[in-house]
Amino acid sequence: MFERAKEAIEKAKRVLLISHVNPDGDALGSSLAMFNSLQITGSKRVRIVNVSDDLPRSYDFLPGFEKISKTFSGGYDLAIAFDCASFDRLGVDKIDAPLIGFDHHPTNEGFADIDINDPSYSSTGELVYDFLKSSGFVIDKNVALCLYSAIVSDTGFFRYENVNSALFKKCSELVELGVDPSYVADMITQRESLAKLRLKAKILDTLTLYLNARVAVVKLTQDMLKSTGAAPSDAEEAANMARSLATVEVGVLLREEPNGDVKVSLRSKRFVDVSKAALIFGGGGHKRAAGFTVKGKDFDTVLKEVLDILKKELA
Amino acid sequence: MFERAKEAIEKAKRVLLISHVNPDGDALGSSLAMFNSLQITGSKRVRIVNVSDDLPRSYDFLPGFEKISKTFSGGYDLAIAFDCASFDRLGVDKIDAPLIGFDHHPTNEGFADIDINDPSYSSTGELVYDFLKSSGFVIDKNVALCLYSAIVSDTGFFRYENVNSALFKKCSELVELGVDPSYVADMITQRESLAKLRLKAKILDTLTLYLNARVAVVKLTQDMLKSTGAAPSDAEEAANMARSLATVEVGVLLREEPNGDVKVSLRSKRFVDVSKAALIFGGGGHKRAAGFTVKGKDFDTVLKEVLDILKKELA
Repeated sequence: MFERAKEAIEKAKRVLLISHVNPDGDALGSSLAMFNSLQITGSKRVRIVNVSDDLPRSYDFLPGFEKISKTFSGGYDLAIAFDCASFDRLGVDKIDAPLIGFDHHPTNEGFADIDINDPSYSSTGELVYDFLKSSGFVIDKNVALCLYSAIVSDTGFFRYENVNSALFKKCSELVELGVDPSYVADMITQRESLAKLRLKAKILDTLTLYLNARVAVVKLTQDMLKSTGAAPSDAEEAANMARSLATVEVGVLLREEPNGDVKVSLRSKRFVDVSKAALIFGGGGHKRAAGFTVKGKDFDTVLKEVLDILKKELA
Repeated sequence: MFERAKEAIEKAKRVLLISHVNPDGDALGSSLAMFNSLQITGSKRVRIVNVSDDLPRSYDFLPGFEKISKTFSGGYDLAIAFDCASFDRLGVDKIDAPLIGFDHHPTNEGFADIDINDPSYSSTGELVYDFLKSSGFVIDKNVALCLYSAIVSDTGFFRYENVNSALFKKCSELVELGVDPSYVADMITQRESLAKLRLKAKILDTLTLYLNARVAVVKLTQDMLKSTGAAPSDAEEAANMARSLATVEVGVLLREEPNGDVKVSLRSKRFVDVSKAALIFGGGGHKRAAGFTVKGKDFDTVLKEVLDILKKELA
């Protein structure tokens, strides 16, 4: 699976690395791992891009974070997309270069020229580690730090599916290369803002149970953001907290966007494939975490439609 | 370090296993691991004891959990204490048998006849794994499940100090033996009660910052327990959440007990050794997590005394 990508990367002189908009730790960590590894070889010009307005500050400790650019022009021999299931999620009109795609989303559309996509992987970071290692690319302490951070980000610190014996062995190797697990955890989880904590309390106050307490719904309004001073991304964990209830299979976060759109995040626990529900509304994601956006409807209408779908899935 | 304990266990016919009161996942998991392993040999009578009124339900999935007894009488050749730093934390007057102590607390008082205590270990579970493995005791799927659960419990899912390359390798082995990491995570973290979530929101609402926002204090009153229906142990995470703020080094949870005592939990992030502060008040614990109880004083008085100590530690 890796051979063609290895040859393409070795041959390329000007390489563009790009990850999906609103990047998470896996998107940033996996692309920065490749960035740091290719920088070491010295013989390539490498640019790392994410077109999002804001990158999550909790990953600003990753080596190369400050090199991530919002823009790029042409002139690349090769582009590599990370953690991205469809071309439009890259947030750019087109890329004038052959494209490699490293991904682990089951909903991946196969948009790249060379697709390296395996949904059995815990994270794109784990996949990139296997690629770099088997292809003989450099994995120093900085590369290892980016990969380990990608892995813990996408596994919720080893709590989700696809955490297996092989992944722990790889993490043992990454730590051997110099990663400090408690430092990474501190950077990612121990630099919360007071605004975020205040927002969390407000969101928890909206928690309501539906469908025999199998579905927990929490809400985020623009007013709540204004009164706490928190950022919209500060609400991400709220859907996870809703899901953590014993009776609950699906946690739902309804988010009011500045333009009045309703953004819906779905998190499931054991058997509901929320990526299916998200696809119905034109969104996407994983079995256990997916999302979509609805235009021109209020919270109650959107919630009713979502519950109608979930009712069938829970039956 | 293991040889004497190995011989003592091999020789014993009637063995008592006991862990500290108000047990956490490490106390339960490490003692149940030994219980399951010794049960398999068949030739011993083994009793597992914890004298606490309530055991945390989140660990009721561990094999043998329902065998944990509140009481025991005499007649044992050997007793083994797990995860316990001082004899009084076992909650019993005396034990009429030679005592082995497996522990990793730096504050361990060396009360056992054979002390197997190493503070460089992440958890007593990790230590017991090394012991069972090097001593040739059986480690089947059930034993592995108890050990893995002890490890994730005491490392906060691989986020605290003492998580190293060797620990990840051991976890790789435990998963190889049949442990499902996402099942364990679901059992421990995804069976929350609505009462606990409501309590969490209430506790977060009390959050106040002191000493240039280096200390975050949250409070739990008996009224909050009554109005939510939550249990006192449901508040444990609140001190962790207080500590997670970027500016904060120490998170403090002040807890009103039914008799009016004030129970204080301290959690530190990087450099304050909270076990020192706890010792001053007659309590104990780890560098990063410790606690104590104060009689006959109100919240404000206790808080003032705690802040006076912390001020020096933060200076």
